[in-house]
Parts: sequence; C-alpha cells; structure tokens
Amino acid sequence: MKLTVKQQTDIEKARETMAPTRRATVPALEEILYTAFPVLDHGFIRVIDYMGDDSSIVQAARVSYGKGTKTLSGDVGLINYLMRNRHTTPFEMCEIKFHVKLPIVVARQWIRHRTANVNEYSARYSILDKEFYIPAINHLSSQSKTNHQGRGEVLGLPEAERVLQILKADSERCYKNYEEMLNERDGKKIHPDYDGLAREMARMNLPLNIYTQWYWKIDLHNLMHFLSLRADPHAQYEIRAYAEVMVDIFKSWLPLTYEAFDNCVARGVHLSGNALMVIQKILSDIPVSQQESELSKREWNELMSTFGIKFD
Amino acid sequence: MKLTVKQQTDIEKARETMAPTRRATVPALEEILYTAFPVLDHGFIRVIDYMGDDSSIVQAARVSYGKGTKTLSGDVGLINYLMRNRHTTPFEMCEIKFHVKLPIVVARQWIRHRTANVNEYSARYSILDKEFYIPAINHLSSQSKTNHQGRGEVLGLPEAERVLQILKADSERCYKNYEEMLNERDGKKIHPDYDGLAREMARMNLPLNIYTQWYWKIDLHNLMHFLSLRADPHAQYEIRAYAEVMVDIFKSWLPLTYEAFDNCVARGVHLSGNALMVIQKILSDIPVSQQESELSKREWNELMSTFGIKFD
Amino acid sequence: MKLTVKQQTDIEKARETMAPTRRATVPALEEILYTAFPVLDHGFIRVIDYMGDDSSIVQAARVSYGKGTKTLSGDVGLINYLMRNRHTTPFEMCEIKFHVKLPIVVARQWIRHRTANVNEYSARYSILDKEFYIPAINHLSSQSKTNHQGRGEVLGLPEAERVLQILKADSERCYKNYEEMLNERDGKKIHPDYDGLAREMARMNLPLNIYTQWYWKIDLHNLMHFLSLRADPHAQYEIRAYAEVMVDIFKSWLPLTYEAFDNCVARGVHLSGNALMVIQKILSDIPVSQQESELSKREWNELMSTFGIKFD
Amino acid sequence: MKLTVKQQTDIEKARETMAPTRRATVPALEEILYTAFPVLDHGFIRVIDYMGDDSSIVQAARVSYGKGTKTLSGDVGLINYLMRNRHTTPFEMCEIKFHVKLPIVVARQWIRHRTANVNEYSARYSILDKEFYIPAINHLSSQSKTNHQGRGEVLGLPEAERVLQILKADSERCYKNYEEMLNERDGKKIHPDYDGLAREMARMNLPLNIYTQWYWKIDLHNLMHFLSLRADPHAQYEIRAYAEVMVDIFKSWLPLTYEAFDNCVARGVHLSGNALMVIQKILSDIPVSQQESELSKREWNELMSTFGIKFD
Repeated sequence: MKLTVKQQTDIEKARETMAPTRRATVPALEEILYTAFPVLDHGFIRVIDYMGDDSSIVQAARVSYGKGTKTLSGDVGLINYLMRNRHTTPFEMCEIKFHVKLPIVVARQWIRHRTANVNEYSARYSILDKEFYIPAINHLSSQSKTNHQGRGEVLGLPEAERVLQILKADSERCYKNYEEMLNERDGKKIHPDYDGLAREMARMNLPLNIYTQWYWKIDLHNLMHFLSLRADPHAQYEIRAYAEVMVDIFKSWLPLTYEAFDNCVARGVHLSGNALMVIQKILSDIPVSQQESELSKREWNELMSTFGIKFD
Repeated sequence: MKLTVKQQTDIEKARETMAPTRRATVPALEEILYTAFPVLDHGFIRVIDYMGDDSSIVQAARVSYGKGTKTLSGDVGLINYLMRNRHTTPFEMCEIKFHVKLPIVVARQWIRHRTANVNEYSARYSILDKEFYIPAINHLSSQSKTNHQGRGEVLGLPEAERVLQILKADSERCYKNYEEMLNERDGKKIHPDYDGLAREMARMNLPLNIYTQWYWKIDLHNLMHFLSLRADPHAQYEIRAYAEVMVDIFKSWLPLTYEAFDNCVARGVHLSGNALMVIQKILSDIPVSQQESELSKREWNELMSTFGIKFD
Repeated sequence: MKLTVKQQTDIEKARETMAPTRRATVPALEEILYTAFPVLDHGFIRVIDYMGDDSSIVQAARVSYGKGTKTLSGDVGLINYLMRNRHTTPFEMCEIKFHVKLPIVVARQWIRHRTANVNEYSARYSILDKEFYIPAINHLSSQSKTNHQGRGEVLGLPEAERVLQILKADSERCYKNYEEMLNERDGKKIHPDYDGLAREMARMNLPLNIYTQWYWKIDLHNLMHFLSLRADPHAQYEIRAYAEVMVDIFKSWLPLTYEAFDNCVARGVHLSGNALMVIQKILSDIPVSQQESELSKREWNELMSTFGIKFD
Repeated sequence: MKLTVKQQTDIEKARETMAPTRRATVPALEEILYTAFPVLDHGFIRVIDYMGDDSSIVQAARVSYGKGTKTLSGDVGLINYLMRNRHTTPFEMCEIKFHVKLPIVVARQWIRHRTANVNEYSARYSILDKEFYIPAINHLSSQSKTNHQGRGEVLGLPEAERVLQILKADSERCYKNYEEMLNERDGKKIHPDYDGLAREMARMNLPLNIYTQWYWKIDLHNLMHFLSLRADPHAQYEIRAYAEVMVDIFKSWLPLTYEAFDNCVARGVHLSGNALMVIQKILSDIPVSQQESELSKREWNELMSTFGIKFD
C-alpha cells in the first residue's frame, strides 16, 4: 500500500482534530480512526466513523433513558442472551463506516451484501489509478479437487512464475491501452489530433484485478453476518484478507459483543435434525451408520470431524 | 410529557459525560443530545446518537482521504447538485438514532418505513405505563368532505366534549381491566387467589391510543424520505407533530443539507408530463382547457393552484 | 371465521377463472388458491398468487436456459446443499402473496419482518369491521415463571371466565363508542346534529384485539426466516397459529425445499463454540462440568436436554 | 447474440409446456416468456416468470376478496392516483424475474439497485465464455464537455478504428491468457505438467467488457425506480440499452400502469421551490432574473429549456 503525500497529509490532518462529544465513545477505536490498515498488495481499510459501543446494545435492548448499563456481568449476560437467541435488533443500533481500497474482483463479491450503504469512486467521472492486485506467489493455487468453488494446492514454481508474468504483463498493457483510448497520460494528451474516448467507455478495457475504492457503512448486525461468511475458511482468500482486518477492528470496538460473536457464531456450528439424531444415538450407545442416517457421505464425514469422532 | 425523577436523572447523567473524539461532531446537536422534546400530550423525541455532519456527505461523494470539504460554496453546490439529481448514496452516509415515545396508533404508521432499525419496548416482557393520547380539543375534526382519508372542520363544542369524555373513560376502563387481568396493580396482586393473565395476552385489551416507546435509527436519505411524507400537510396530524420536531433537529444537525432538502423536496413540486404540457402552452399563449389536457378536474385545480393561475 | 356472502362469491368467482400459462405451476397450490383457511376465531390466510416451484430454485442456482432440473435426486441434493451452506440467493427466486386477516396485536409482531411487501386495509379511509379476537378459554395462561416473555400454566376456571368477560365487554363497549364518535352505525347517522369524528382519529379508541387485514408478499428465503422464528415454540401462540398454517402451505407448494427446511432449520440446532466443546469432551470421555464449561446453568441444561444427556 | 443449439432447445422446450392456472395471467407476456431479446452485441434479456397484472395493483390497494377490479375507468383512475401520490405499496405486489446476459461493466452499475434478488453465474465454479462487449463504432464517443460523467461527440473515424482495434486485441489476449492460467482450452489441458490456476483467481485477468449473466427478480415499484434512472438519457448508453428493452416488456405486461408511469415519471419533471417561484412570477408577469432566483446558471438554463421559454 502506497499512499501519496497528499493522502497521508489529509489523513494526518483529519486525525489531529479532536472535539468533545456526549456520544458513546470508544478510545481504542479513536486511537486508529482514519488510519489505513494495509490489505493485499495495494488495498487498505480505514475506519472513518462509528456509532455506539457495547453499552449501546444494552441500552437499546432495555429502551433506556440513560446509558442503559447496569453491572458488567449483567451486560455480558444480556449481550450473550441476545446473540444466542437471535434477538438481532439491538445489534442494529451500532453502525460503522469504512473507507476501503480493493480489487474490483473482490468488490463484486462484497457488494452482494445488500443491507449496507456504498459510495464508490466513479470511473465515469475520474481516471482510475494504475494499481493492480498481483497475488503473492504463495497464494497462487490450483482448483480444489474436492470443492468445486475453492482452491487447493499451491502451484509449483515454474507454473506460478508464469502466472505472475501473465498477470503483470496484461495489467500493464491493459492500463497502457486505457490511457491510449482516453488519449491522456500524466494529465497530458498523447495524440494531438484525437479527442479521447469517454471515461465511462475506456474503463471497460481494465481487468478485474484493478483497484477501486469506496465508502462502506453498515450496522453491526449486518457486519457480523458479513464476517461470519467472509472471514470463514470457505471464503475466497482475497475477501477474507479484508474480513480478518475487520474482525480485529470489531474486537477493538466492541469487546463484549465480539466475545459473544466468536463463541456463538464464529466458533459455533449448526446441526441439521438428522445430524443431531446421529450424535444423540452415539451418546446413548445406539448403533448408527451413515447409510441409515439420511446424511450424505460428505455430511457424515464433516459431522464426525466436527465432533472429533473416529469411526471405522 | 412527564418524566419520572429516575428518568430525568438518567438523562442528566448521560448528558454530563463528555469525551474527546476524532469523529465529525456537530456542536448544535451535542447541545440537545439526550434531551426529551415533548410531542403530543405524553410523547417525546430524544436524539441518542448521530454519525456525520454536512461535510460527511461531501467526503463520501468525493471518496476522500481527509475531511473532504473544499470551500463552503463548493460544498453547498455539491450538496445541492446531489439532491437535485437524486444521487442519494452520499446522504446514506449520515445516520441518526432517536428514542421516541408515541401512541401505538402513530407507531403503526411509522413502522411502515422499513429501511430503519427499531427496538420497541416489549409488552410481552413488561407492563405498559398508564399513558394515553387524548387529543387537544381543537384537534378533534370531522371526516374531510374532499379527501377520503383526511380530516376536515373542527368539531363543534358539545360533540368535541363528548368525544373527549368517551376517549378518557374508555382509556381508564381498559387500563383498569388490563391490570385486573394481569392481577397486578402498583406491583401488588389484586386478587390473592388468581395467577394473573400473561402480559403478552393482557395487552390485547389496550386501545390504540396507549403510548409505547422505541429506539429508532435511520440514515439521512431515508429520514428525508420519511420527512417528505410525514411532515407533509396530507400526513395525519399526530405523526406530523413528530415529523416537525425532527425537521427542527435536522436543521440543527445538517444546516446545508436541510436548505437543499427544503428547496428541492419540501417546497418542490412534481409535474406529470401532461401537467407540464399545460404550463408550457400557457407560457406560449396557446389555448388550453381541462378537457383537452387529459388531467382530471382535481389534478387541473391542483395544478392551477400550484402555479397561482386564476382560470375562468 | 365468517365471510360475507359477497366475499364468498368474490372468492368463488376468482377460483373459477383458469388460463393457460407457460410459467412454473404447482397443482397442489392451484387447488387451494384464493381459499380462506381459518386461523384463531375470525382470522384467515389465503394464498393470492405465487411465483416458482422447487425447480425454480435449481434453475436459478444453475442460471439455466431451460427449466434447470436434471434428475430428481440431483435436484434434491442441490437444494439440500444450498440450504445447508446458507447459499440463500436461489431461494429468493420464489415468491408468494397472501391475504391475511389478523388481530392488530399479532400484526404488530408480524410487521417487524421488514423484507416483505405489505398493503394494509386503511382505517383512515374505511370503518373497521366489528371483529375482535377473543381467545379460546384453554389458551388463557398465566405469565411463565421461567421465561420473562412467555406464558405458563393455563388459568383456573373462575379466573379464565372473568378474563373472557372483561375482554368481551371492553371490545363491545370500545366498538360501540367508536361508532358513537364516528356518529355512524349501519351506514346511518346516530346523532342528527353531529358531524362525526374523522375516521383516522376515532380508530384510536379500538383495542389491540380488533382484526385488521392485509396483502403480504414475501420471497421464500425471507418466508423461511419468518417461519423459523414464528412457527417456533417460543413464539407467541397467536402468531404461531398463522405460521403453522403457512408451514402447511409451504409443504404443498415446495415439497423438496420444505424437507430441506424441516431438517436443516426447523429440526436443526445451533451450538456455540463452548457448547460444542462440552459435547466433544463427553464423546471422548473427558470429564466436564457446567462450572468449567463457561456455559450458564440455563445453557447447560438446554444443551443436556437437546442431546438427551442425563447428568447428575 | 448467439445462443448455442443446446440453449435454443432448452428455451424452446420450456416454451412448449403449458399448464392451467388460477393466477392472474397476461397473454402478451406469456407470448414472449423465455424468449431471448438481444441487447448490445452478445447480451440478452429473457422474462422467466412474473406475478400479477394491472388488476393486482387495484386488488391490493382495495385489499379485495376477489379480483378487485371494478370498471376499467375506475381502475385507471386508481392506478393514476396511486402513482401521482406516491402510494407505492400496491405496486410492490407485482413481481418479475429476468435472465440477463450483460457485460460486467454494466453489471456493476446494475447491482447498485439493492432491493432486488440476484443469482449470478459463478466464475469461481465455472469458466466464463469467450464473449466480450465491443461497442458499435457509432457509439464510441469522447468525454462530454459539459457533463463530467457522460459522453459527448462521436469519435472521428481513425480514432474510433484504433479504439476498436485495442478493445478487440486486449479482449483476445486476456482471454487467451485466462485459459493459459487455467491451463485448459476446449476442455483439455494445455500444458501437461501444469495443474492450472484456480478459477476464482484466473478470472481476475478478464477485462470489464466480458459478459456475465444472472437471474434478477424485482418488484414493480423498484423496477419503475430502476427504469426511471436507467432508461433516462443521462444513463450510460450500455445500461440504457437494457432498460429500454425492459420498458417495452413493462408496456406489454401492465399497459395501464405503464401509461401512468410514462406520464407521471418518465415524462414528468421535478421543480425545486426556487424554480417553482420563477415560473409563478413569469406567469404573473413579475420580472425575474437568474441572479435573483437563487438558481445556478445551469439550473436556470435547464428550467427555461424544460418550459420552452426563450429568454434574453
């Protein structure tokens, strides 16, 4: 991640301004406000604003006149109770706003989470910067043999190097040709007699690994849903890299809620009725088999692995 | 509006706590934070939290690294441009959270605005307070003769007094019977041998003018949509009373955006294609008549009145 | 449930019209289309329209050019896979529209599900019918001793009869006074010199057990979410009565998807990370206790009961 | 647009199946159901399913027991009234589902409409087809001189030809390299010793003009909002090409509602309060000038042009 001097200065200046507020305030989040956390090779996440702290959830759940907190253990218990029983509305009472720089290929997955507010940098209005996501060599993997939509083993060296070479060369060339079509480079005309293609058209030559950026604002309930899907090992590595930074931010922002999320959601498991019956039988020493269980082989194996059961 | 001593103290205590923040801060809103503004006879609106100021809209529209503002006139121009051209996403970047006490009859209209977060006081869990909306006598009106869903002339005195008497007596009686069914009054059992009906059932005897309360959080774009419908003269008076307090809060919070909203939305008008053609013809001295205009009589009259045209 | 002759005729007439369509069609749902299924004492649910069948989910998941189904077992497997792995978007491709008559006290819970389309009968525009929900005597229960927001034991006879008497008398009186304020009964003026209070105001005297009605349209993903919460034993009985009728409709409409829902969601359980560790230890014969488990006593008891484990 | 023989056959087979239904049915839409309408060079729109007809809006607005229609003129009047007064909920009672093939650059604008259901073809799971959007030569335009985010004059021939050459060559090369990285062409391995890069990674080399496809389902209210923005002359040509086909489909589906939409929305204009005052003054022969009007020069010019006023 390289920020320009102007961008660095703008961030520093924004960080310098302090004002008194009566609102719920989280010192740990104030500490990192506006700071850019690097993700992938050129991307970042910055927290721009936030609303609420752990006590805001308690306050809303109790429809309080004051801060709403009673004892710490009472608050912890209530937050856990709400999380466990899917009383989701109090979690919607916290909100966070990010500035994110990310490859378009990641942005296309991200935007599928619809209950959020988004303002994207406009490539109809402005020229995109020359920044492309080129994966680290140890992240180049082959198609998974077991999962139709994931990746498997890391590629061997000669193949990996060839892939990187292709990605870099095509990014370079596509961007150069983007400028050619715009008829503009470094703010200057390239060919004196050409008008330059409109920006909204020229951008179509750019590959999906080019970086874009947006402001993204979401409430805590929907953020947790995003993280439960995108910080999961089944998520594509590139979006997971962003989700993991956001998990850390979440932890600083709302430590009690994070604990409940980690226990109930991140480390939690969902069992189907049929899977539950298998475990019940095993616990009661009733013989079971995959065939009788109505579970597929794959579900059966996953279940056994979840509960650490060795079966033969 | 009567707050209990405990509620007043909780509010005062919340107002006392100040902390430094790097976030966008609006002194005029800090000034009134947590304070209860009375609405109707027992209702109120309190601002609990907010995110963003006028500059946050500009910042998001420009996907800025810093505060995003340039010159004041540049910001004003941009905000007006966004409002006029329905570029709504930057307005979603501000958020506000209210605590509202309101009659259920009003709450039922309010909740139809779905893009908001709500936490309502639970009458399954708690016993509702004995507070009913009894309209001021000068707000008691007959059904409108021209508008099938509005009110018309103020009722004459004997009729109005009779209405008030009915409302008060039925509220009293229904609440008394609510307590009877709960078998609880002032925290004590009424009939020693009875168990008391469950709260989730007993509440069904309460009339729609009883007060409830909720936390309600919404982004600025959706708030403006709410206000454009609910602060409008066609809205039912009771919800309009709340909307008008919120318009004042909006004005303190985001003065530049409020100006743009007032001009474009609140004082703006929408013309159908047929209506536009009528005005175009009048401006060009081409004869027009309601019959040829494809406007209904009602639309025609509204149009003439909008433009201050006297026709005969 | 009593329908007027006019309503019955309207329904019959709607049922008589048949037309050929190329759309996905479900004969079992056609069979019951428009028919009113009674719920509670005066309520009902009618299916007005639907979009899609089981194969539409498969078709969307495969982004097919044709119907999208391959083999029955392939379709079953895919639907189960999507349900288990929370690939929710294909389920959004089915839609259903209901006409529901329900007490306002139930409507207030129902409307909290925001991702749906609603058109409610307007009491600003029309006079509500004189129909009130009066519970069956065996549904009158006391407040639960263990669950702060549920009901417990059925009330004894004298208390139950007194409750019914109160509910009936207050409903009668409030409705009579609603008419008095409107100054209209059976379409005629009551008091010749009065104008009558506007309908939007008079309605505030009606108790929460009066019936309203609405058209409600929702996609299958959000319907399943609704049913998972509202057909659950923890839901209030009155809304559960509606949800259970909808579960039956769901079963007729989409038998394969219903099976997957029943197994994964309705009969499924969610374990927190801490709860999972307890079961893992029990399966490995490692000693565990509630104290060390970080589960609360209540969570521990629920977990033991879920897995049918007797502990002492 | 080229469909494969398999795709054509699948569509034909789907069209052949007819079944009787009691649901609201629109013969004009049945006529074209499943048929692919070409858009741009390789794109298409197909209607896959629909719910409701013009009478469904009337039926929901009246919360009817039967079909809900009375007289044709009564229905027309009601639909116009609802449209004019922003009573949007009855329009949400109709729903339509499309299968769309479109360039990713268009898909990225399209997906910003969040209140819709989407299932996109997965490039994690499958290999994308080799189809790129190459604009017609007469659509290649320079950046607009007056509008920062639109296009202006058509490019001169030598420049236009050069642009096409670049787009074609880069599309070819990027796709060829996509296959190289996947190590798969025509279903066969290219390099016997390579494993092939995972599909979720290889796709990042594809430019934004490659085609994707999705199922997209939306209710009528949100469809009209989409069309009001995307069939507008200010929309980018490429998405407008899709919107215009959808306008034609809308017209076949719901002729009465389309008329109301065309009059109120498509041909309608919105005036700010300040703009209204200018027109009022002109109509009353009160002198006005841009300077005193509080309109910017641009707004003033637009206003004069909207009303066909010549000013000097």
